[in-house]
Amino acid sequence: MNEMKSGVIIKNGTVVTMDKHRRIIDKGIVVVEGSIITEVGSEVCIKKYPDFKVIDAENGIVLPGLINTHSHLPMIAFRGLGENGIKDRLFDLIFPLEKNMLSRELIYNATIHGAIEYAMSGITTFVDMYYHTDEMAKAIKKVGIRAVLGETIIRFPVVDAPKPYGGLDYGIDLIKKYKNDPLVVPALAPHAPYSVSKEKLLETQSLSSEYKTPILIHVSERTDEPMRLPEEYKGKSSIYYLNNIGFLKKNVHLAHAIYLDDKDIEIIKNIKCGVAHNPVANAKSGHGIARAFDMKKAGVRMGIGTDGPMSCNSLNLFETMRGVAMMQRAQYKNATLMKPIEIVEMATIGGAESLQMEDKIGSLEKGKFADIIVIETKSPNMVPCYDYYAALVFQAQPFNVVTTVINGEIVMENRKLQTFNVEDDHEIMKHIEQKIRPFAKELEARSIKYS
Amino acid sequence: MNEMKSGVIIKNGTVVTMDKHRRIIDKGIVVVEGSIITEVGSEVCIKKYPDFKVIDAENGIVLPGLINTHSHLPMIAFRGLGENGIKDRLFDLIFPLEKNMLSRELIYNATIHGAIEYAMSGITTFVDMYYHTDEMAKAIKKVGIRAVLGETIIRFPVVDAPKPYGGLDYGIDLIKKYKNDPLVVPALAPHAPYSVSKEKLLETQSLSSEYKTPILIHVSERTDEPMRLPEEYKGKSSIYYLNNIGFLKKNVHLAHAIYLDDKDIEIIKNIKCGVAHNPVANAKSGHGIARAFDMKKAGVRMGIGTDGPMSCNSLNLFETMRGVAMMQRAQYKNATLMKPIEIVEMATIGGAESLQMEDKIGSLEKGKFADIIVIETKSPNMVPCYDYYAALVFQAQPFNVVTTVINGEIVMENRKLQTFNVEDDHEIMKHIEQKIRPFAKELEARSIKYS
Repeated sequence: MNEMKSGVIIKNGTVVTMDKHRRIIDKGIVVVEGSIITEVGSEVCIKKYPDFKVIDAENGIVLPGLINTHSHLPMIAFRGLGENGIKDRLFDLIFPLEKNMLSRELIYNATIHGAIEYAMSGITTFVDMYYHTDEMAKAIKKVGIRAVLGETIIRFPVVDAPKPYGGLDYGIDLIKKYKNDPLVVPALAPHAPYSVSKEKLLETQSLSSEYKTPILIHVSERTDEPMRLPEEYKGKSSIYYLNNIGFLKKNVHLAHAIYLDDKDIEIIKNIKCGVAHNPVANAKSGHGIARAFDMKKAGVRMGIGTDGPMSCNSLNLFETMRGVAMMQRAQYKNATLMKPIEIVEMATIGGAESLQMEDKIGSLEKGKFADIIVIETKSPNMVPCYDYYAALVFQAQPFNVVTTVINGEIVMENRKLQTFNVEDDHEIMKHIEQKIRPFAKELEARSIKYS
Repeated sequence: MNEMKSGVIIKNGTVVTMDKHRRIIDKGIVVVEGSIITEVGSEVCIKKYPDFKVIDAENGIVLPGLINTHSHLPMIAFRGLGENGIKDRLFDLIFPLEKNMLSRELIYNATIHGAIEYAMSGITTFVDMYYHTDEMAKAIKKVGIRAVLGETIIRFPVVDAPKPYGGLDYGIDLIKKYKNDPLVVPALAPHAPYSVSKEKLLETQSLSSEYKTPILIHVSERTDEPMRLPEEYKGKSSIYYLNNIGFLKKNVHLAHAIYLDDKDIEIIKNIKCGVAHNPVANAKSGHGIARAFDMKKAGVRMGIGTDGPMSCNSLNLFETMRGVAMMQRAQYKNATLMKPIEIVEMATIGGAESLQMEDKIGSLEKGKFADIIVIETKSPNMVPCYDYYAALVFQAQPFNVVTTVINGEIVMENRKLQTFNVEDDHEIMKHIEQKIRPFAKELEARSIKYS
């Protein structure tokens, strides 16, 4: 892209940098050369770049791209199924759907679709655990979005690994292939402390350390988790267990982390593990409310996530930001908890910190990857706009995102996706929907009949 | 409007009627003549209406307009202020702002702005308590939206009533003027059980019964409410108090209703009072989680509301629908509570029932007012769409609403507002913002200094 131009310059916006000083620059510019931000400053500098492509932010907000720290994106193909009270949604619907419907092709196409929705909603990086992550990698490169992709490792056979724990080999192949990719960060994703053996957890940690990749894991999501740990740790917290066996290191990224005690928070903080806080999914799924306020106060490296599209069907990180405030304030009956600036931090630089990627993404600073979004402030819902952080957290909607730049590439401009034909995507997804619908309806009917 | 045509026909959509049988008509039509729906049926009937204006729903969802059952819309002028932890936001910020900034002109212009945002987000009726409700009435008729407007009655002087309880006279004037208006339903709005005397509550009820208008009141919103009731009822619940003095009748519409016991729910149900459930505002304001599931189960007439734009800055009833599920499921740790169809009911026919207006609005049925929205299902966030109710509750965003018809008038078509120049509104609101900003910043600074 931009072959004819030396680079891209975004002007005429309020640049909310999220840098160390949380600088906000009125009438600021962000200069992009190749995949890198080379200057963030005031509009007077603009004449230095006469032959750059200019994006006019039209008094909007220029923000680092949002980081969605937890998802299972290909499940978007099943979004909206089983929403009417199936008792065991996982066993009666999701597992059979995955077993019978997932294919390389479906995972590729569903990832395209989800990545389009992300890019059009201001999400420039997402963290994902799923299967056939090599297909996902191809898809995200096609759309041009950044992702940490973790191949799922679990004790039973799954769609891309017929042997127990086959994901480990699959993941190592992914790592070898994408180790130096500009957009994909390959990772290993042991599913949860109760679904992966101690030995395999330690093997995963050892391989991740060797290849210097992140580990993604679900932790403390359910109340029954302590009783599902290995015999000698039964009743203990998952964090205690994982730390005690030597699995927890700063490359470990913990999804959910709902049921934590003070000691757990201290361990996470000291080891510098990352946390993905998923307030909307945790609520919708009936799992409860994580201690986000306490974690933030303790200085835990924490981002926010939607979780997968069957857990938080609206892949809307603005709504997730509001969800952070709503759930903490309802829980503690205190309207002053979780200030807007703190929540925008979680959606940007905090997410980057949770991934140990704060030197690369999460703020608009010279030398970082050019992951930038422009949010218009002309639509009725963005007026008035007294306080940029409050407007981002409590007013903004995905459709206010007009331009999305990822790794220096203009992925969306003026609400038009530049990298993929959205009509093609629509047609493919409608076809997938038609194929899945009869089987899913049968599963739902069966589940209702027997429940 | 449509002077040249005999009426309007919406075709080529899935009509989610919300009628008694909850009929869903694939490839359905809705026929509008004047302000009334005259037919809801299958597309084969279309040839009966050769000279009607045709709106093509393009395979989208045709739904009754959403009903926002609680708001203070002119506060949109202050939206985004005081979001950084002012301790007493009401006394240190909101009251001084209202005292110094409110004028007839501001209330008119802010109502225009809010009504535009509503109409563009699929809200066709809203319920409001505020001041200078005659200005609000003028504004909403200009935009062409339907509203129940309650003039606030409170024990101290306010902007439009220099004497205590002056709102009562103001409200009676409003009622006389708008009694037979096609869009405005005038109402009286005693602020709360603790801020209006027993005598004035009963006077309000007697006048409302005489004029056959609704009464809007905040109830059981705060934990300290029982201790603020009149001496002989101190410690009792507000519902007990209001019922005991003979104030509660089916014309009473209760906003919030958070802290209810089983007996309170029974009383509300038996008397057929309406309830406005505001899950997002209740959470954001730290007030807690209302017993929506229990109320729904008991058969209470219940709608959903955003509350005012300082309590729920995003005036987004789709998000409020999701909020219903999130808060109940987080509270009771049960993912099967509040099914999508039940939540869509609350946003449509349930809201109408809460206002005793179920014979006029809330569903797509012959003889009802033509309040209709079309929701496109082509944007990535609406794909797939296995289940219309689940897609509406968990996927839809305001920008998916493409067409809004209110009282037979096409207020928005293809995302273009037809009744008001949105650029004029933008300019006026930016001017208001500039005027309010310095005073508000001074109040915020003072509050932070002294807190």
